[in-house]
Amino acid sequence: MTEAEFLARLRTLPLHPGAHGLRDDAAVLAGMVVTTDTLVEGVHFLPGDPPADVAWKLVATNLSDLAAKGALVEGIMLNHPLTDTVWDSDFLDGLAAVLAAFDCPLIGGDTVSLLPGAPRVLTVTAFGVDAAAPARTGARAGDVLWVTGTIGDAGQGLAIAKGAAGDAALLARYRRPVPRLAEGRALAPFAHAMMDVSDGLLIDAGRMAAASGLAVTVDLATVPLSAAYRASAGDDLAARLVAATAGDDYELLFAAPSDWTPAVAATRIGRFAEGEGLSLWHDREPVEVPARLGFEHGVI
Amino acid sequence: MTEAEFLARLRTLPLHPGAHGLRDDAAVLAGMVVTTDTLVEGVHFLPGDPPADVAWKLVATNLSDLAAKGALVEGIMLNHPLTDTVWDSDFLDGLAAVLAAFDCPLIGGDTVSLLPGAPRVLTVTAFGVDAAAPARTGARAGDVLWVTGTIGDAGQGLAIAKGAAGDAALLARYRRPVPRLAEGRALAPFAHAMMDVSDGLLIDAGRMAAASGLAVTVDLATVPLSAAYRASAGDDLAARLVAATAGDDYELLFAAPSDWTPAVAATRIGRFAEGEGLSLWHDREPVEVPARLGFEHGVI
Repeated sequence: MTEAEFLARLRTLPLHPGAHGLRDDAAVLAGMVVTTDTLVEGVHFLPGDPPADVAWKLVATNLSDLAAKGALVEGIMLNHPLTDTVWDSDFLDGLAAVLAAFDCPLIGGDTVSLLPGAPRVLTVTAFGVDAAAPARTGARAGDVLWVTGTIGDAGQGLAIAKGAAGDAALLARYRRPVPRLAEGRALAPFAHAMMDVSDGLLIDAGRMAAASGLAVTVDLATVPLSAAYRASAGDDLAARLVAATAGDDYELLFAAPSDWTPAVAATRIGRFAEGEGLSLWHDREPVEVPARLGFEHGVI
Repeated sequence: MTEAEFLARLRTLPLHPGAHGLRDDAAVLAGMVVTTDTLVEGVHFLPGDPPADVAWKLVATNLSDLAAKGALVEGIMLNHPLTDTVWDSDFLDGLAAVLAAFDCPLIGGDTVSLLPGAPRVLTVTAFGVDAAAPARTGARAGDVLWVTGTIGDAGQGLAIAKGAAGDAALLARYRRPVPRLAEGRALAPFAHAMMDVSDGLLIDAGRMAAASGLAVTVDLATVPLSAAYRASAGDDLAARLVAATAGDDYELLFAAPSDWTPAVAATRIGRFAEGEGLSLWHDREPVEVPARLGFEHGVI
């Protein structure tokens, strides 16, 4: 069954008021924001990835969902499959590092056994408080679309993880993403809509527009690329399309009034208007929207 | 790595105050009780088990942890691996049934893909409010040990699920456990310690005694057996040891003052005393404690 079919069936079940119709990455419960992500070996991470990096990414991607809500981190729960001692021990080292880096306590969880050789499946559920951010549904016609940081680095990092030569900084963006928690806190009171970029800039921008009942235009020439990305992939239109459709950036994408400038480092990349759909430009030239805008799997 | 080693390492990490040192099935967070369980195909359920029953058991076992806290059900989150349409559709039927049966809304979750043929791994996280029950640490010397319902039925049901002949009622106890939510609410204000029986009556009674710093004596002759269990396995000492070391009962085990009688159907099966360890009797005869008291895997 596809995710869309599964979600459609879930929406026929009794839903909690805090579930927002299962149309958001996070739920609200007793004043807390709650989000959960599962990583599957061979699907979301590579069997050869260092276990400490898997732990980092598992926690960091959940905290990125809290960042998009402007929340303070309360803690995480971990569902962990026990396998060999070396892997589990290295995983625990990475878990200790990521929890310390983001001042995130452990709340509880579950451990299970797997059949020998079965791919690992790991889940983290993250809890945040004082979430001040709007949902992705709140963009208004005339709003500017902004994104923090740089886009496409993790996509290049994935290629390096698979064996390509490249810059260690790009690999680190793929394996050890940094959730934009401070930026999320700073932006939350002012943004009209906010989400994190996990599946690809273009697919996520299109989702924000659709959720807000609007059209969005992105100027690919303005998509922020790092020096390492430019050195690796260039910065022509083709390189910019690659960056904007790669996933795993974990930057914040937000809509804000056109007369406002954020207090954190961010780049204007587009604009919302009445209508629907995604349009692309490169400087003053229209660009055909590619069939694949990012990863289609994802969060309930 | 073993669960005990993994937990010991986790306890060196920064823990949330509501984690209770990772010594309880549930955490407390913003006034809510939170618990999570993962089921693995081939480990916790059989590949041939009906998907609707897997959904029921996944939710019911989490709600049983809430029942042990005397909590009201707030809702669940689901982490689901998408596989073939028939399996997922049958699973959704069971999910609808169990959520309706226990008035439990869906809060959110995550869907993921698996590699073809990989065993399914499913997680539910359950949230409850107004949890009035004490932890498993509160039993006092002189308290009576009680258990709700009957013990051992699910163990016989597991044998039937694996191909043995037997009573459909026993199979249902294994595949569709009923969390003792009403009993938990009624017992919570009076019990000194309470937990659900998931891994086996004897192992769980020993855990309650150890957590409370006490010894516990169980009289196997008093362990409540159903008519279906007696018809299937008999009720001699050997049959009673089988029942008391089988898992998946999801009854409530609780300690209470000796001069108090519960307002719900329950059976006196033992007594707490100063000291440590588990002692067994059968009527007036001492019984050697078996090496295996139940399942050793389990919850963080």
